[in-house]
Amino acid sequence: MTQKAIQDFYPDHFSRCYGCGRLNESGLQIKSYWDGKEGVCHFLPKPYHIAIPGYVYGGLIASLIDCHSIGTAAAAAYRAEGRPMGTEPRFRFVTASLHVDYLKPTPLGVSLELRSTVKEIKGRKVVVFTRLSAGGEVCATGEVVAVQMPEHLMPK
Amino acid sequence: MTQKAIQDFYPDHFSRCYGCGRLNESGLQIKSYWDGKEGVCHFLPKPYHIAIPGYVYGGLIASLIDCHSIGTAAAAAYRAEGRPMGTEPRFRFVTASLHVDYLKPTPLGVSLELRSTVKEIKGRKVVVFTRLSAGGEVCATGEVVAVQMPEHLMPK
Repeated sequence: MTQKAIQDFYPDHFSRCYGCGRLNESGLQIKSYWDGKEGVCHFLPKPYHIAIPGYVYGGLIASLIDCHSIGTAAAAAYRAEGRPMGTEPRFRFVTASLHVDYLKPTPLGVSLELRSTVKEIKGRKVVVFTRLSAGGEVCATGEVVAVQMPEHLMPK
Repeated sequence: MTQKAIQDFYPDHFSRCYGCGRLNESGLQIKSYWDGKEGVCHFLPKPYHIAIPGYVYGGLIASLIDCHSIGTAAAAAYRAEGRPMGTEPRFRFVTASLHVDYLKPTPLGVSLELRSTVKEIKGRKVVVFTRLSAGGEVCATGEVVAVQMPEHLMPK
């Protein structure tokens, strides 16, 4: 497993994200790691991240899948080029589309595990598939189409 | 336009949702209204709901589309039965799937408008399509498959 989170390699300009920016003190601080085969993320929802009593809010699940998939896409892009994470030019992806299937209610109060695999890398696009589980049971799956950030959004 | 938000008709047990529960003080307090044709929601993101500087976090957009679509599904279900909102038996939907297409970056600092239409009502399922716009420009679209909450999750 990598020691430093994928998101912690993002340049400062891209580290304000509410989901995963290390510089956003109000944010969720989602952290993703690469275990050699998959992107892995653990996250313990706060008690107020509730949908109905006892279960996790679906919008939080969507947020976790979103940021973790984008991080996994960046890790995959570096790997595809045989470059260490964080080397120049930096990869930074944005979400073109997000799909979540909520398979069963996700229990609140336990750490969630997300495991992401790369389905496709083609040009500037990476497609990432994610399973979100609680206590070993898959509660939701997600697919994110990640694309490299357009040039006009990159800092000068 | 309805005067009272759709979510404010939810019973207390279902009003703790981080996205739209009136009883969740840490939550987003998303409010949806029915204008006679569409479900309508306005929401001003906080400055920390950022993706990259100047733009709204995609996970927040997913959350808005989720809760607003679920509210719109409930309004549609009452309408289909010719019953006023909040009458018994109450309708409460959960999200079976959520799909979001991010068409362009959504600017931060302006009120977002979500407009939802019902694509299909069949049995316990309602399919809702949503356009999210900022300053009159559609920045994202979403489709939610909403299903009536399973009996075992309903309060006794």
